[in-house]
Amino acid sequence: MTVVDTLIHARWIIPVEPEAITLEHHSLVIDAGRIIDLLPTDDAKQKYQGISTEHLDNQALLPGLINSHTHAAMTLMRGIADDLQLMDWLTNHIWPLEQKWMSEAFVRDGTELAIAEMIRGGTTCFNDMYFFPDITAKQAIQHGIRASVGLIVIDFPTVWAENSDAYIEKGLALYEQLQHQPLISATFAPHAPYTVSDAPLQKIRVLSDELDRPVHIHVHETLHEVEQAEQQNGKRPLQRLSDLGLVGPSLIAVHATQLTDTEIALLAKAGAHIVHCPESNLKLASGFCQVAKCLAAGINVALGTDGAASNNDLDMFGEMRTAALLGKAVAGDASAIPAMTALRMATINGAKALGLDHEIGSLSVGKAADVIAIDLDHLETLPLYCPVSQIVYAASRQQVTDVWVAGKRLLNRRQLTTVNLEELSVKIRQWQQRLSA
Amino acid sequence: MTVVDTLIHARWIIPVEPEAITLEHHSLVIDAGRIIDLLPTDDAKQKYQGISTEHLDNQALLPGLINSHTHAAMTLMRGIADDLQLMDWLTNHIWPLEQKWMSEAFVRDGTELAIAEMIRGGTTCFNDMYFFPDITAKQAIQHGIRASVGLIVIDFPTVWAENSDAYIEKGLALYEQLQHQPLISATFAPHAPYTVSDAPLQKIRVLSDELDRPVHIHVHETLHEVEQAEQQNGKRPLQRLSDLGLVGPSLIAVHATQLTDTEIALLAKAGAHIVHCPESNLKLASGFCQVAKCLAAGINVALGTDGAASNNDLDMFGEMRTAALLGKAVAGDASAIPAMTALRMATINGAKALGLDHEIGSLSVGKAADVIAIDLDHLETLPLYCPVSQIVYAASRQQVTDVWVAGKRLLNRRQLTTVNLEELSVKIRQWQQRLSA
Repeated sequence: MTVVDTLIHARWIIPVEPEAITLEHHSLVIDAGRIIDLLPTDDAKQKYQGISTEHLDNQALLPGLINSHTHAAMTLMRGIADDLQLMDWLTNHIWPLEQKWMSEAFVRDGTELAIAEMIRGGTTCFNDMYFFPDITAKQAIQHGIRASVGLIVIDFPTVWAENSDAYIEKGLALYEQLQHQPLISATFAPHAPYTVSDAPLQKIRVLSDELDRPVHIHVHETLHEVEQAEQQNGKRPLQRLSDLGLVGPSLIAVHATQLTDTEIALLAKAGAHIVHCPESNLKLASGFCQVAKCLAAGINVALGTDGAASNNDLDMFGEMRTAALLGKAVAGDASAIPAMTALRMATINGAKALGLDHEIGSLSVGKAADVIAIDLDHLETLPLYCPVSQIVYAASRQQVTDVWVAGKRLLNRRQLTTVNLEELSVKIRQWQQRLSA
Repeated sequence: MTVVDTLIHARWIIPVEPEAITLEHHSLVIDAGRIIDLLPTDDAKQKYQGISTEHLDNQALLPGLINSHTHAAMTLMRGIADDLQLMDWLTNHIWPLEQKWMSEAFVRDGTELAIAEMIRGGTTCFNDMYFFPDITAKQAIQHGIRASVGLIVIDFPTVWAENSDAYIEKGLALYEQLQHQPLISATFAPHAPYTVSDAPLQKIRVLSDELDRPVHIHVHETLHEVEQAEQQNGKRPLQRLSDLGLVGPSLIAVHATQLTDTEIALLAKAGAHIVHCPESNLKLASGFCQVAKCLAAGINVALGTDGAASNNDLDMFGEMRTAALLGKAVAGDASAIPAMTALRMATINGAKALGLDHEIGSLSVGKAADVIAIDLDHLETLPLYCPVSQIVYAASRQQVTDVWVAGKRLLNRRQLTTVNLEELSVKIRQWQQRLSA
């Protein structure tokens, strides 16, 4: 008998890789934060003894979900301004509020709320873009969730930095500080083609190559963005990024609702990644991402919620479902984006986009133990013909019972282990009063 | 002090009519199954004494949600065949299973599962269309939920009836039986233009006029349906229904994803109703209903889940959210289908479509006490700037704590009072084994 940290006996295990396999009555063996074995429960009981042993008789184990595009702290603005045109929403509501309230405290508390919501909903890693990324990283470390932190760059001054050079400098300093944090990685995060000029984008390309870091950027979110760029620069934003050398395997292109066939071919050939944010795209009426077409072309498409101010949640179960449903309708093909594809978008595809697929995205021996358990013994998921179908099309995030990141348990039978919910709730209500004043 | 059956003191009350009002610290007064008063809690405490008194300090009270299109018993086939083309799904999966298993027992147990799921998710009335509507009515009565039962008519023989005359006769007999059931109403339910020929449709029109009953029918669900009808009849299905005299205030046209501007004007002028089923339309890639356009034309648009075999749930909170999000994207206007409009579609608009708006659809004095309470003190709905926004865009049906239909409590702090969950679960697992054999 080998003694290990954690032994989880589960009714089902859906490792995601290899694809389309659902194991029954198997066990996951975790030691020193990593998955060291995955085998039938009968064998596991012979071979391993867990310091902690879990019997999850009604649950399916999945790799933790990866939310590939967030603005975590914006959760403080959930529902503060809905049902508005994008530019009205941004210029008359979101930006003035950010202008007035943006601070370390805002990012600290907003990110803590986001992290609590994400852990409770089965998300174990998020790819963020916001001001004060140092605070975002600090909160992720404190609460034990994995994060890919965006080193934000934008042309105009904010309380975080006064110009694009300063943004890049602060980003690099933070990158240095975070080097030895096992749960934190970094991306360069120029906000969007229309808010970052050529010079900083060129700098970022060089740094991205040197440091082998992804470039996380909003691209072709709306038709308006594309048309305006054509007027100003005489070319579409993706063409401009391509001319600047940014369209390559490091590119994480978020939204991409406006893509010509040529642009789909360009992204595919370059090995670039798309992050699809279906609920945000719907809510802001931004347009429809051609997900089935992009996947067929060979593009790696991951999934994100975007900020809770335009979603209005950080629910990756809901997002998988919307991606699968909407993807069929947009393709005009009910067999497009099957449940398993949606689950891959929310796990291994996200890991690939973030350059973390050696570490996370599937329940594979050797990878970090980022694992979630979902209870399928609810009347809402009965009868049960296929666990993956129920998980994508019928289950809700409230059925997530347990969450581990790098082997550490962050959710224990629905209880958060690293967040004080009562204290958090008091802080959030204070922000609610301030922001609605 | 007046003694009443039930007094509910709530943090918020959203009566739906009048529109756009959210009352704070108000109380709902229920006696003999009806709402007899709605007033500030301070006043209610002076004026009324409840035999049962509830303090719902974190909840919003809403009118019970109305699911305006279901095939309740099909919940037994939830997830049995996903990600398939509509015709493949129907002809190779759903219809053969129905052929083999359709029976009173199938409808009894499938409908019980649906009712349990609906009550737990805040739905207090459903508009059904399926075989053995007598059993559906029986189950609704037994479990205390309100139902509008479809007197199904279809040209081909099934275990329920051998031809359209027999369907109509059995329907009329059932209609007679149900006359004095306070929670049950009936509609004529010819399945679809492509499955019911002119003669039975003519009969149904006459009966619908005589008995003042709605006609509940799938119409223009897919482009294929419209094209095929044009080939066969030389006209589009809505034109055929119009020529048969069926397009009037009694028409409940389900799906309507294929509408020309002329058809929208026709439906509006006729006072006909549309039931929008966004998730089913997405999942089957049926097309996009132009909801904003239909509402702007003055058509009453209600909301339905369709059967759980093509959704895969009976979650009206999810459906409201999808309707609001998708409606914006389809209109290309982020201000289309605001949260309150989605809530109206799921309440008062449904009541109007079913001809029940004198009884249900809003928390109005004199109407039946079909009431639900949703707890907004969850981190997923914090901060709380606007209860209606949180209910439509962020809350989930798991936050529903209590449900009353005609003053009778069917859900008590998340516990179903009229369903034995353990026994139901055993029955459903038996069906699961049979259907997957």
